[in-house]
Amino acid sequence: VSPFKGVIPYLATPIDHDGDLREDVLRRLCNDLVSKGVHGLTPLGSTGEFAYLNRAQRTRVVEVTVEASSGRVPVIAGVASTSTSDAMGQAKAYSSLGVAGLVVVLETYFPLKDSEVERYFLSIADATSLPIILYTNPNFQRTDLSISVIERLSRHQNIVGIKDASTNTGRLMSIMDRCDGRIDVFAASSHIPAAVMMIGGKGWFAGPACVIPQQSVRLYDLCMGRRWDEAVELQRRLWRFNELFARFNLAACVKSALEDQGYEMGAPIAPQSALSKDERDLIASVVSQIGPQ
Amino acid sequence: VSPFKGVIPYLATPIDHDGDLREDVLRRLCNDLVSKGVHGLTPLGSTGEFAYLNRAQRTRVVEVTVEASSGRVPVIAGVASTSTSDAMGQAKAYSSLGVAGLVVVLETYFPLKDSEVERYFLSIADATSLPIILYTNPNFQRTDLSISVIERLSRHQNIVGIKDASTNTGRLMSIMDRCDGRIDVFAASSHIPAAVMMIGGKGWFAGPACVIPQQSVRLYDLCMGRRWDEAVELQRRLWRFNELFARFNLAACVKSALEDQGYEMGAPIAPQSALSKDERDLIASVVSQIGPQ
Amino acid sequence: VSPFKGVIPYLATPIDHDGDLREDVLRRLCNDLVSKGVHGLTPLGSTGEFAYLNRAQRTRVVEVTVEASSGRVPVIAGVASTSTSDAMGQAKAYSSLGVAGLVVVLETYFPLKDSEVERYFLSIADATSLPIILYTNPNFQRTDLSISVIERLSRHQNIVGIKDASTNTGRLMSIMDRCDGRIDVFAASSHIPAAVMMIGGKGWFAGPACVIPQQSVRLYDLCMGRRWDEAVELQRRLWRFNELFARFNLAACVKSALEDQGYEMGAPIAPQSALSKDERDLIASVVSQIGPQ
Amino acid sequence: VSPFKGVIPYLATPIDHDGDLREDVLRRLCNDLVSKGVHGLTPLGSTGEFAYLNRAQRTRVVEVTVEASSGRVPVIAGVASTSTSDAMGQAKAYSSLGVAGLVVVLETYFPLKDSEVERYFLSIADATSLPIILYTNPNFQRTDLSISVIERLSRHQNIVGIKDASTNTGRLMSIMDRCDGRIDVFAASSHIPAAVMMIGGKGWFAGPACVIPQQSVRLYDLCMGRRWDEAVELQRRLWRFNELFARFNLAACVKSALEDQGYEMGAPIAPQSALSKDERDLIASVVSQIGPQ
Repeated sequence: VSPFKGVIPYLATPIDHDGDLREDVLRRLCNDLVSKGVHGLTPLGSTGEFAYLNRAQRTRVVEVTVEASSGRVPVIAGVASTSTSDAMGQAKAYSSLGVAGLVVVLETYFPLKDSEVERYFLSIADATSLPIILYTNPNFQRTDLSISVIERLSRHQNIVGIKDASTNTGRLMSIMDRCDGRIDVFAASSHIPAAVMMIGGKGWFAGPACVIPQQSVRLYDLCMGRRWDEAVELQRRLWRFNELFARFNLAACVKSALEDQGYEMGAPIAPQSALSKDERDLIASVVSQIGPQ
Repeated sequence: VSPFKGVIPYLATPIDHDGDLREDVLRRLCNDLVSKGVHGLTPLGSTGEFAYLNRAQRTRVVEVTVEASSGRVPVIAGVASTSTSDAMGQAKAYSSLGVAGLVVVLETYFPLKDSEVERYFLSIADATSLPIILYTNPNFQRTDLSISVIERLSRHQNIVGIKDASTNTGRLMSIMDRCDGRIDVFAASSHIPAAVMMIGGKGWFAGPACVIPQQSVRLYDLCMGRRWDEAVELQRRLWRFNELFARFNLAACVKSALEDQGYEMGAPIAPQSALSKDERDLIASVVSQIGPQ
Repeated sequence: VSPFKGVIPYLATPIDHDGDLREDVLRRLCNDLVSKGVHGLTPLGSTGEFAYLNRAQRTRVVEVTVEASSGRVPVIAGVASTSTSDAMGQAKAYSSLGVAGLVVVLETYFPLKDSEVERYFLSIADATSLPIILYTNPNFQRTDLSISVIERLSRHQNIVGIKDASTNTGRLMSIMDRCDGRIDVFAASSHIPAAVMMIGGKGWFAGPACVIPQQSVRLYDLCMGRRWDEAVELQRRLWRFNELFARFNLAACVKSALEDQGYEMGAPIAPQSALSKDERDLIASVVSQIGPQ
Repeated sequence: VSPFKGVIPYLATPIDHDGDLREDVLRRLCNDLVSKGVHGLTPLGSTGEFAYLNRAQRTRVVEVTVEASSGRVPVIAGVASTSTSDAMGQAKAYSSLGVAGLVVVLETYFPLKDSEVERYFLSIADATSLPIILYTNPNFQRTDLSISVIERLSRHQNIVGIKDASTNTGRLMSIMDRCDGRIDVFAASSHIPAAVMMIGGKGWFAGPACVIPQQSVRLYDLCMGRRWDEAVELQRRLWRFNELFARFNLAACVKSALEDQGYEMGAPIAPQSALSKDERDLIASVVSQIGPQ
């Protein structure tokens, strides 16, 4: 069972025109999110463009996030690689920087068998003593975690949760049933968080929570209070942002919305392009319709 | 808004060794389901192997179902074709047999544009005065209904609901939001019915309800009573059957479970083969673990 | 080994505004193709919109084609169904109409195992004494024939060839190697016919040959004469029509080009729509650039 | 038009138990391939496991290959990244190491639009004065190069060729037609090399040529001599190795076959696992049946 819960934003990564990290912007974003009540911070998720950052940039992003959170909420850093030894190296490096946990994903080039997938995650779980959240995103990775693999991995003492970024909500109930309480299940932005909470979820790791942290925390509180009618009513408004998030490039969408809030996030990393004026206006309009609460 | 609601089993079609419909078995199944409280009956859904039945068989299945239900619950018959005029013919034929509504799906061979998809459904909606449930199953059809098409179709007065058989539960919330109450949303066996009810669903059209009708009605009643904790607890047990249903051939799975209950359903239509002994034992075991309530 | 070879057009099916077969147009098309040198005729292929025709229409199309060819070239009719018994019925019916062979494809709704796929084709091969061409089209069917299944099927005495409509030309060489000469391999419009002939193909079954029969026969003759440089030069021009054929709806593309040649083909069957003016102009322009030879 | 032609092996990368490059083995492999007549060498292709090597390893692999070839054949190094600036950095680094050209591929995480794909390749083409071969592999990357993008890229003076690793051989003829001789087309192991040569190909970049270099060069010579019957006969034998290559993990397959020839290649990089004994025996048997010529 996981020490984590609640609303854990996948942090977007502010990058300037020269491709360098804007540390001050990241620091301010972390601070503001914590003060708005989020329950943790995840640098180097999909929304954080981990796939476009080099080793040094990744390390620095984690470092800045840990400093900025200064122990107020857990920092759960993203680990991602095609190579087991490289992923183990990331895990150890982030552990030494003081993170509270890891969200681990497998990148693939050549197709892998279940036994190979399993070994990757076990090796990383063995590499440090940190609690680990499995992360699988069949939209962006070509290797998914089968339920059998998840069931076996759930028996490792360091593996405490899973974030499943498929759109298949029924799969989450199957995971809960098969893992029998050994790991916690978290939603991604592709699931309806309130529905996942209703069936037994523990919270959600998601990019949109960077943009609508207070509303997300409010939704979480309604769910925890089992006030489902109010939760669904709020959820319905918040869902419109998740729809945009899925429709556009995730990082571009969150960066655009955060720019509107005064954070100098910059454009997504090339060859990704910035959104058009119309797209940015649509995002601004959806966020403003959600309202502050 | 739809006159339908609740638990509406997709009826399996009992076929004997010569390929002929076992009318008496179908009649008994319909009777038993109605007496166990289901809210409607759908002949010629996916589970009913519509794709394997010829024109005469399809018509006879509808006829027998209408007779057997004898007005106690609405019969909502499946209409499916690659061809608009053929589908219109089915709609008119079933209308004259006394069905209360139609569940309409589009089969595709060559890929279609949204405008072509839209026209198919509008033509059928114009062909009779019956209320129509749109049906889309991206697992078995190669053409899905986009949310824009659904939004436009929802403005036709005869189109009153949608059954979406994707596994993407978030899509249902998007449909609800975009159609603004003009059509009702129903779950399929690929979604968690309790979760769909929680976000505003009206019921579910699904094969498993042939096998576990009372438990399904109980789940529906808990949802309607907003007793979500009990609903989720029951849902979790029922979900195991939906998992099997998705894992095996749908028709084979339901036929096997109904044979265990004394209905002579026969094997699925060739080239589909019957399940193995081990598979049938697994199904029997899962059904028995669910229990009678 | 197959009694068939060469250029075998997949006939488009002329349909009038009421959805009825234009028998005279089909008859004239068959006549003209035969007089231009094609080596066989296939009614009820993909291009022939078999998936949109009812039983009676299918039968009539075969009947008219057999009459029109009046023994000058073999008629090899398409058989297609989700259901084994229905497909066997088609095979017997077309056999009694005097066709010289069958091109058999499997339509699928629920996914099938290899053993189920195999049984379908074996049942049809056993149903008549006609020579059978296996047909697999992974673009339009959801069940493909694995090379192992093809290898096993190639041992049936009535199974004499395969038309593979994937785009994977290497697969054809693998089939030739695995089946060791027991069956002939034919190209589809998705392969480069000259390349398939070079590696050992026997001809091609394809919609474009309705539109460019003489040029196709010329290409075949160059290949048979092993005049590869000339063949490739001609092939390059002909390929442009195959590109359009893949880009647009197949039936719509061929019908448009045949309308330009004076055949009243009508529109593709609804919900498929006719091509736009721009699309039809593009087709006309590509055909005219190919030239008469 | 490209300065490259013929048989250009995608070099496997020998790695020891500690994950370090076995430079002496790589050097010997390069030497032997050159002495057997290959026309170029490509380090850091798919077969070379570029996706599993870190920056320093990649650079060292290129360095060793350049040294080992010592100007006898061109070294055309693989450039691959999700990020434009990272890819430009690789291009410049390899240029300064003395490579003769680059094979450039785009890795993707978030989906990209055509304009974004195009800009990535143009930026790299602008980064050095080296001739560039575009590389697209829809089996392993989630972004393919559309023919329109290829057509536009073919107008850049540094872009001289394309290696297309789809299995769609017709696509190569479309590319040739659309680019009108401005770029050369090379086969990958997923196409039949002799067929690609027949329609106008310039050679092939492929992993199997590490294992069967002499036979590959012999095939190339037969093609260049337009001795197609002999070419097809040889091709048919060689194709069996390409089939295995596609069936197993590419790197594992080539490493296994090279181990049999006395090169200490080691296992593929974890989490990829080594092949089983049976798989290795099958590879050995297929290679031995091909024979030395």
